[in-house]
Amino acid sequence: MTDGRLARGERTRAAVLARAADIASVEGLDGLSIGRLAAGLEVSKAGVYAHFGSKEELQLATIRAASDRFVDEVVAPALDTPDGLERLIALVDRWLAYSRSGVFRGGCFFFSVAAEYDAKPGRVRDEIAGAHQRWLAVYEAVIGAAQRRGELDPAVDPATLAFELDALGMAANLRNQLFDDPAIFDRARSSMMARLQAAATGHQTMV
Amino acid sequence: MTDGRLARGERTRAAVLARAADIASVEGLDGLSIGRLAAGLEVSKAGVYAHFGSKEELQLATIRAASDRFVDEVVAPALDTPDGLERLIALVDRWLAYSRSGVFRGGCFFFSVAAEYDAKPGRVRDEIAGAHQRWLAVYEAVIGAAQRRGELDPAVDPATLAFELDALGMAANLRNQLFDDPAIFDRARSSMMARLQAAATGHQTMV
Repeated sequence: MTDGRLARGERTRAAVLARAADIASVEGLDGLSIGRLAAGLEVSKAGVYAHFGSKEELQLATIRAASDRFVDEVVAPALDTPDGLERLIALVDRWLAYSRSGVFRGGCFFFSVAAEYDAKPGRVRDEIAGAHQRWLAVYEAVIGAAQRRGELDPAVDPATLAFELDALGMAANLRNQLFDDPAIFDRARSSMMARLQAAATGHQTMV
Repeated sequence: MTDGRLARGERTRAAVLARAADIASVEGLDGLSIGRLAAGLEVSKAGVYAHFGSKEELQLATIRAASDRFVDEVVAPALDTPDGLERLIALVDRWLAYSRSGVFRGGCFFFSVAAEYDAKPGRVRDEIAGAHQRWLAVYEAVIGAAQRRGELDPAVDPATLAFELDALGMAANLRNQLFDDPAIFDRARSSMMARLQAAATGHQTMV
């Protein structure tokens, strides 16, 4: 196979997965079908099938591609800010911007597919759980750094604070989608900042 | 139609809707089909069809029946406790028990179907949004009563506190389903009680 054909194959694969993540954020991972993706992208069904082989492989690849996009949109930009409380606030803000701005067409991809698969044990649920666990681990690591820097109370349990910040973001995502209420992002941010203020050692002002 | 036939019809309808809510809590509302319900309950398809007429009507009736079951399990028992902070804590505890104990087979019915339909405008989404709004209104009313009784700080915004309590409960529901982690309910309860403690006027001890 020539380099040109390889590159073309990669582009097709990336286009299929981007489209698949958008569809899944609205219709769920069960709403994906090789035929529908092929039709929407004007690629042959055989071409799509050659990349993924089965619906489950397509679903798993879609989750991995969405996870990469999430890292690009939320985690990577926050890593440009200094570690500790400032980075934690950047993560909160990037997450809210990600949910609000429609990186995926139906709101947070992971919220949609986690609710869809949370009661269906198997490889797809494991992949979603792994992505969620990695996100919580990012929060926890940055909370730990803020504690070591003396910015957050060392008595605060990082896993609990991560759970709370994630809960508030997720609820804002749902409320905006369900009630068409983007003002909920401001309320959620206030709640998240109040939570950080309560956990702070006192010198910081949350803005 | 005789009274006996009417009563039999009501029993069939109730049985279909109970089964439908269980299926939807795992598979989603799109996982419902008249044929599947008929087969599972050994009722004729025509019999199920006579009750609902269309898949959308079946979905709407399922949401209403699940809402009634939610009121029976969570709201009504809390109304047996005195209004104010004590009732608010009872609501929190009933909600966590409801999610934990599997009133619906796939965890909270409303979480599952809200995530499924939040990006699909129409009657089904409106019915789900209405049920969610009624639940938040219950929280807000009881928070307001606790404020009037001097138990919670009157400066606290009831809608914000309701949003936060609901967010923490919802996140616990997802985490338990996705990670098979029932210990999350204790963490969520601690977070909810800490939130109430922060909003309390000082005389109360949260347990």
